[in-house]
Amino acid sequence: MSKLGLAAMISPITLILVALLVQKFGGTSVGDPDRIREVADHVARCRKRGDQVVLVVSAMGKETDELLRLADEVSSTKPGREMDMLITGGERKACALVSMALHELGIESDSFTGSQAGFLTDTTHRNAKILDVNPYRIKAAVEAGKVPVVGGSQGVSSDNDVTFFGRGGSDTTAVALAHALDADACELYTDVPGVFTTDPRLVADARKMDQISFDELLEMTATGCPKPAMRSVELARSFGVKLHVRSAFSWVPGTWVTQEEPMERAIISAVTHDTSEAKMTVSGVSDRPGVAARLFRSLADANVNVDMIVQNVSEDGRTDISFTLPHEQIDAARSTVDSLLEELGANGTIADPDIARVSLIGAGMQTNPGVAATMFETMSNAGINIEMISTSAIRISCVVREAQAEAAVAELHAAFQLDRPASERADL
Amino acid sequence: MSKLGLAAMISPITLILVALLVQKFGGTSVGDPDRIREVADHVARCRKRGDQVVLVVSAMGKETDELLRLADEVSSTKPGREMDMLITGGERKACALVSMALHELGIESDSFTGSQAGFLTDTTHRNAKILDVNPYRIKAAVEAGKVPVVGGSQGVSSDNDVTFFGRGGSDTTAVALAHALDADACELYTDVPGVFTTDPRLVADARKMDQISFDELLEMTATGCPKPAMRSVELARSFGVKLHVRSAFSWVPGTWVTQEEPMERAIISAVTHDTSEAKMTVSGVSDRPGVAARLFRSLADANVNVDMIVQNVSEDGRTDISFTLPHEQIDAARSTVDSLLEELGANGTIADPDIARVSLIGAGMQTNPGVAATMFETMSNAGINIEMISTSAIRISCVVREAQAEAAVAELHAAFQLDRPASERADL
Repeated sequence: MSKLGLAAMISPITLILVALLVQKFGGTSVGDPDRIREVADHVARCRKRGDQVVLVVSAMGKETDELLRLADEVSSTKPGREMDMLITGGERKACALVSMALHELGIESDSFTGSQAGFLTDTTHRNAKILDVNPYRIKAAVEAGKVPVVGGSQGVSSDNDVTFFGRGGSDTTAVALAHALDADACELYTDVPGVFTTDPRLVADARKMDQISFDELLEMTATGCPKPAMRSVELARSFGVKLHVRSAFSWVPGTWVTQEEPMERAIISAVTHDTSEAKMTVSGVSDRPGVAARLFRSLADANVNVDMIVQNVSEDGRTDISFTLPHEQIDAARSTVDSLLEELGANGTIADPDIARVSLIGAGMQTNPGVAATMFETMSNAGINIEMISTSAIRISCVVREAQAEAAVAELHAAFQLDRPASERADL
Repeated sequence: MSKLGLAAMISPITLILVALLVQKFGGTSVGDPDRIREVADHVARCRKRGDQVVLVVSAMGKETDELLRLADEVSSTKPGREMDMLITGGERKACALVSMALHELGIESDSFTGSQAGFLTDTTHRNAKILDVNPYRIKAAVEAGKVPVVGGSQGVSSDNDVTFFGRGGSDTTAVALAHALDADACELYTDVPGVFTTDPRLVADARKMDQISFDELLEMTATGCPKPAMRSVELARSFGVKLHVRSAFSWVPGTWVTQEEPMERAIISAVTHDTSEAKMTVSGVSDRPGVAARLFRSLADANVNVDMIVQNVSEDGRTDISFTLPHEQIDAARSTVDSLLEELGANGTIADPDIARVSLIGAGMQTNPGVAATMFETMSNAGINIEMISTSAIRISCVVREAQAEAAVAELHAAFQLDRPASERADL
């Protein structure tokens, strides 16, 4: 008697439990043959439970870094088309090995490149955007009882060239595939057990959250939380794909990311920090209409990603404008601003790389003005000076000295009692 | 003024010198970033000379071995479809890096997988056969003034899966591409300067030949000459592709392989040896019609590649049948023969792995019976016993003890004066 027949006899309800899951395993999780075998064991257990599984894998461990190193040795320009041909080989290698490890356990499996899996992209090499996903070969494999293993972060362009989605793109592959297959959930297996109230390496009693909303997670990834990749969270929110961020090394549930309001309703969810940005100040700018517009339009044209902006109170018709930007864009920004100095009536630019942004994330923050006050008081009591402030509906960010960032995170995590579930926190 | 315009003004004859060359570089030639840069320099010099170049590259150095090692760690069965996905990544990585190194010298270049280059194959994974080559993207790249770099030994099957042609398949890719593009020549760059009269590691005065016929080279590759891959020579002969076997590390011309009779007409061209085979003897076989046919049909059905066959003179209605076969097929052959022992009326099988085949290659051998006599006398004088003999129109092979193979090669090379051009040899 077939397995299906048996299940139907016992109870029709059993069938409801069978789910189609897209599971993404990151580079550490497929870093060596032992880890690859563990992924295969994991899939075997999911299959035994009755679930159908589609895998998405990243390149093994440091493979992508090694490929970049080789490219650096032969090329100063690293042309995008060739870089994508090179880098995507890493995920391709991993998916073939994972598929073999599944065969070894008697699980039928086929590996697929991004192109074979139906990922059609634009022609923006090194950072290609998905135009469409037609996973007919993946569907056929699932229907044939196989486990498809898809190379992450890759596709084929409208010019028929190999394209790469960028670092962290495997999360995006997994979410897009889960949507295209109408999967029940997309599980992102990483080397951490879920999404935490803050960086557990900084704060020992950082707490893993059982659930978080897309909007909060987006603010967290935008302000320093490294995983999952922001782009994949955006995509999951757009298409309503249920995300489950969890550990590749245990069966303990991780953090569910959903559009639903979490049952456990906290005003504050998490504290993040980001040291990847610098502060640039343009001093002595003429305080007249259109000056700021001219400055930031030029920076945008130069592909400088300006984040926070602060304009000082004007004195004698002149003012200072400060903004934050990624470290690696300082040179581009400086040459853009320098070419505008005369037009802006400005004195010059100062770049300050030693800053950090500390952010507090939480829904309903704007309706509770006490949150900002508590944040500023906490930092003040700890002797931490706030240099810039920006806010959104669910986030408050402060720029501080980089050397004080870790202390700020710890103080805020304690002040908002993030080590406890929301129901157990004392009122502030 | 364009380069073409200038050339046309000086002399129309200049244009005839412009050639389309398919150049294949093996694993050692692209083994590290320095070597890859040397390949790019080489192409730059060819372009300066006015030639159009299409490159075919193998995987870097020991890359294929490393991929096989990884596969061994996760898989005991190594399924063909997944192995091909894995292994072809090596050539793909190499072609992207070579293309980048060309960009670095200001040479426009695109890399292509076998699939992108138009290699359509059957579905025999690990040893796929080319069904058709439609290199329209390669043609377009050449017409656009670019240098296409093609990953060797790979294509796409009629099932749309990645396929691998097997080890040494890059030579085959190069020859098939040269034919499909109607190229002027196919140059196989290796770590030796050309085709030698015998293995230069064994005989110090082995001589590089300027020219050799396809038939002679085929006999050489079939009897132990490791490069170029036999399959590529067969293909070149079928399509009349001019082959040039030469060193990747110098500009000295190598060996041209053509269908034309060489100007330098030697009876004997080369001595080869091969230690990859074993001898198997089936003893006490009934000497009646149909017995040999039954034996060798069964071995063929078991995919055993039988090469030389010798049947001893019959005694008392029984005989011994010996044949050579690859070492790794001994087990398969033994179980096939053992299952037939009763039917054949035989006593048992003996496998002898310690043999070598020494072969003398040369056109017109059959019209000169003195050649075989000289060969046998030379070995006899050196105390080397001949265990089996087989001949073709342009080859005589003798099976000897493996320990005596190198001595046999050296004696024969000297006896037939292969260290000198044919015109300078004394009559035997």
